[in-house]
Amino acid sequence: MIQKLTSDERLQQLAKLNRWESVAERDAIRRTFEFADFNEAFGFMTRVAIKAQQMDHHPEWFNAYNKVDITLSTHEANGVTERDIALAAFIDSITV
Amino acid sequence: MIQKLTSDERLQQLAKLNRWESVAERDAIRRTFEFADFNEAFGFMTRVAIKAQQMDHHPEWFNAYNKVDITLSTHEANGVTERDIALAAFIDSITV
Repeated sequence: MIQKLTSDERLQQLAKLNRWESVAERDAIRRTFEFADFNEAFGFMTRVAIKAQQMDHHPEWFNAYNKVDITLSTHEANGVTERDIALAAFIDSITV
Repeated sequence: MIQKLTSDERLQQLAKLNRWESVAERDAIRRTFEFADFNEAFGFMTRVAIKAQQMDHHPEWFNAYNKVDITLSTHEANGVTERDIALAAFIDSITV
């Protein structure tokens, strides 16, 4: 079973990511994105969805028009694991 | 400029839709959906996204794995309009 990262491990990993932050009220990380319009926002979501399915690790996310708010956590570990970091790194790689 | 529906009009329209309900804290309608898995949920979202773009009227929505929570409101009218009803009717037409 996958283990959640320790506080130190998480801080180290967050430092390598681009503007992801810890969620205050739960054991998760989060980043918000703003695009030019809905087409660009949903195109981005589609790229993430395909990758997430391949990784078998899925985001929780909210979209309104050009905005996307992504929260990552590993249900099985009840916290942030290397799977969340890997998905976040992919998301960073396809965004500015 | 598009006008928001009156309370009576909205009730009449909601009665024709499938399990959409008024949101308590704001002037919007909402429905939640549950699918077999993420593939099915995101496939559904993609169909809605394409239709929304065609209508130039977009949902606010949240997805976590097999669940999708959709809120519809017309920003320009600060409330629920016939555009929301039309998008809700399309969404109903592609779901059970």
